[in-house]
Amino acid sequence: MVTEARETSTLIGSDQVEGTAVFGTNDERSGSIERVMIDKTSGQVSYAVLSFGGFLGIGSDHYPLPWNSLKYDTGLGGYRTGVTLEQLQGAPKYSADSDWSWSDQTRIRSVNDYYGIRVT
Amino acid sequence: MVTEARETSTLIGSDQVEGTAVFGTNDERSGSIERVMIDKTSGQVSYAVLSFGGFLGIGSDHYPLPWNSLKYDTGLGGYRTGVTLEQLQGAPKYSADSDWSWSDQTRIRSVNDYYGIRVT
Repeated sequence: MVTEARETSTLIGSDQVEGTAVFGTNDERSGSIERVMIDKTSGQVSYAVLSFGGFLGIGSDHYPLPWNSLKYDTGLGGYRTGVTLEQLQGAPKYSADSDWSWSDQTRIRSVNDYYGIRVT
Repeated sequence: MVTEARETSTLIGSDQVEGTAVFGTNDERSGSIERVMIDKTSGQVSYAVLSFGGFLGIGSDHYPLPWNSLKYDTGLGGYRTGVTLEQLQGAPKYSADSDWSWSDQTRIRSVNDYYGIRVT
């Protein structure tokens, strides 16, 4: 087996981000990161998909969050977000029986608008 | 099932990058991306791990490449790299029976030096 550290104080492997816990403002666990969306050209992570509710990803809701709404917290061993559960309730999301397309600019805009992200 | 497009002309899901083919200068397939290493704070993808040789990742060699040595090619449906197979032969790598640590600055520096990447 490769005994390869896939996480350091500064770097984390994409396959390690997937599944990492996300905590709300009062240290409550809001869910976990399902995947991150990477800008192909710049290599910048633009969005993280937060999986919330359900069991092992089944029946859960998927919330696209702007990457910069997440801050890594070494103490918690996960990402901390200022996004509250109340905020999540009205946020753009998709579930197991609905469609989502990252090509749909209206949907992307709804995410950016909801979290007040200005995209240049 | 979620009929979710995880790849668009500009964005790609991390779980979709993993496994994406990498092509050399003459359209030869050099291998595939095993994972990308993300800077936790900036969200910038810093390195991609190229898996080369072996079968389904078993017995293959792992080459950390600077992310900006890869350019996405829509036509090929994969990443194109200027790194040649000859270059790979002397490049920093690790295999199934060797260790690699992303915390080891000497190793990181060997990758940056090898590909002439200046890290600020």
